[in-house]
Amino acid sequence: MSEIRKHYFLDKYCLIAAERHKRPSDFKLTEKHASSSNCVFCPGNEKKTPPPTAVYYDGEVFSSDIEKSDKGWDIRCFPNLYPALSSEKPRNAILSSHPWKGYEGYGYHEVIVETPSHTRTINDYSDEEITMLMHAYRDRIKYYQSQSDIEYVSLFKNWGDKAGASIEHSHSQLIALPLVPPIISEELRVIDSLEECPYCNIVTNEQRSKRIVYENSQFAAIAPYYSIVPYEIWILPKNHINHISEADNSFLVGLGDAIRYIIIRYEQILDLPSYNYMFYESPKLCYHFNVRIQPVLATPGGFEKNTEIYINSMPPELAASHLK
Amino acid sequence: MSEIRKHYFLDKYCLIAAERHKRPSDFKLTEKHASSSNCVFCPGNEKKTPPPTAVYYDGEVFSSDIEKSDKGWDIRCFPNLYPALSSEKPRNAILSSHPWKGYEGYGYHEVIVETPSHTRTINDYSDEEITMLMHAYRDRIKYYQSQSDIEYVSLFKNWGDKAGASIEHSHSQLIALPLVPPIISEELRVIDSLEECPYCNIVTNEQRSKRIVYENSQFAAIAPYYSIVPYEIWILPKNHINHISEADNSFLVGLGDAIRYIIIRYEQILDLPSYNYMFYESPKLCYHFNVRIQPVLATPGGFEKNTEIYINSMPPELAASHLK
Repeated sequence: MSEIRKHYFLDKYCLIAAERHKRPSDFKLTEKHASSSNCVFCPGNEKKTPPPTAVYYDGEVFSSDIEKSDKGWDIRCFPNLYPALSSEKPRNAILSSHPWKGYEGYGYHEVIVETPSHTRTINDYSDEEITMLMHAYRDRIKYYQSQSDIEYVSLFKNWGDKAGASIEHSHSQLIALPLVPPIISEELRVIDSLEECPYCNIVTNEQRSKRIVYENSQFAAIAPYYSIVPYEIWILPKNHINHISEADNSFLVGLGDAIRYIIIRYEQILDLPSYNYMFYESPKLCYHFNVRIQPVLATPGGFEKNTEIYINSMPPELAASHLK
Repeated sequence: MSEIRKHYFLDKYCLIAAERHKRPSDFKLTEKHASSSNCVFCPGNEKKTPPPTAVYYDGEVFSSDIEKSDKGWDIRCFPNLYPALSSEKPRNAILSSHPWKGYEGYGYHEVIVETPSHTRTINDYSDEEITMLMHAYRDRIKYYQSQSDIEYVSLFKNWGDKAGASIEHSHSQLIALPLVPPIISEELRVIDSLEECPYCNIVTNEQRSKRIVYENSQFAAIAPYYSIVPYEIWILPKNHINHISEADNSFLVGLGDAIRYIIIRYEQILDLPSYNYMFYESPKLCYHFNVRIQPVLATPGGFEKNTEIYINSMPPELAASHLK
């Protein structure tokens, strides 16, 4: 059973998830990547994963694998086999064996396999594929956000070794938490104290700046003035929306188009580096939904770990000129 | 000239340091490591670095390289050739070319080459070597902390590729900042609001817990209850001290002994992984000096970047039992 542990005296948390690594030697192993022949995410290996929570096929959604043998799937969602949190326990059961604050690790951890193809990834997706993926993101986030005692749903993609992906087959993940992460609470607190939405202000200002990278009817993609890593991109909806659960089809079309544009540009100018993208949103309070994409091109060192001030050797104005 | 840029609306900063990377292709290169024959940190190559700020030899300190050809050096400190900050500019000169907050990157960035040997590292150091290194740390931190308009000095070591070291020869670094990093300010604010020092409380409690790893007369090394990475260690002085500048010789002997003990244990059970250690201290307010050591055994992914909640697969109680 995992544990959500609070810092001794600060409002910070970590998640102790001890399913896999028990011996020091487990940390010495080089990461292995399954080829398509034994990939658990490939079609034919569905039995090697937990039963699905949602299966997308030809524009329809099913709540289990499709039995008819002539049908496959386009996107397949299922619980992570090694979940960081457990859906079985009550929320915030306080651990009493020590003087510090800890909670049972309640929550959900889902894998979203984005495509049946072992080798295709975001940059290869057709308009239909990328839009369907955004629909799946919206549906799954909405589903978990409505579960009892879930306070925040983190949707993210790890692509490549250096971004923390342990399986090559293109997939995203979702972790539903019983608490709002303090970093998100703090942002919501500041936004709540302001008269206008600061993200609306960012969109207006940055669209006219050297940091604008791409625009479509719904979204602006910018290299933010405050960029913590080289080629970081924020994708911001031009019209204020709190949460992706409110999104209609044209919003999802625009979002998928903007994300895919950035990944294609990373492929073209940076040889498709490892990258992460993360969805930021708040279902309960006023927020401006956004997506941040961070390629992994630099290694944070002791200075970053000491100060949380990131040294970035690529000015966002220059990054934008390369990505445009 | 580097820039210290503030987040659009949160109390967060990044450091845009554009000396080295100008083209996308600069980020595609694999990191190169100098062998001892062409290492700029090795004896004989002193001319390839900026002139030293301090040279330690045989227990004495010199302010420049020692001229007599029969003398060498034990520890050599000099400005980083590619500094993240510049010592030439006035503090906090506000950049006016945009609507967001930015400052000229004023400060200092120093390299501390710990040993003339290209291959020796912390785990190999004799009692004299490790103690002399702690003396150098104290001296250099104290020196920069007394410079005008310097608010915080970050002392850290990056060892190995995955910890951000680009040069193999064992060295530490120091970055002197014109601001207190918000993460440190926040910690100081919370400590100031409490009746007792929380670190004194941690030492007392954790010495009796399963998380104690090592003790000497001055220090306790613990695997903290709130551990964000596998085998993280906090080294805490048993007696409250705000800042290393107040440290006497027996304190420095104890500190070096505790750090070296942990690195030796990492070598024995984890094959000497990449690691960082960082010094935490406050020269102006009440604080409990401490050192944190984090091996790099896991890759943070999108979840950590989204929530700042770290998933750690090694419970600190188990880590302590391995390291003891």
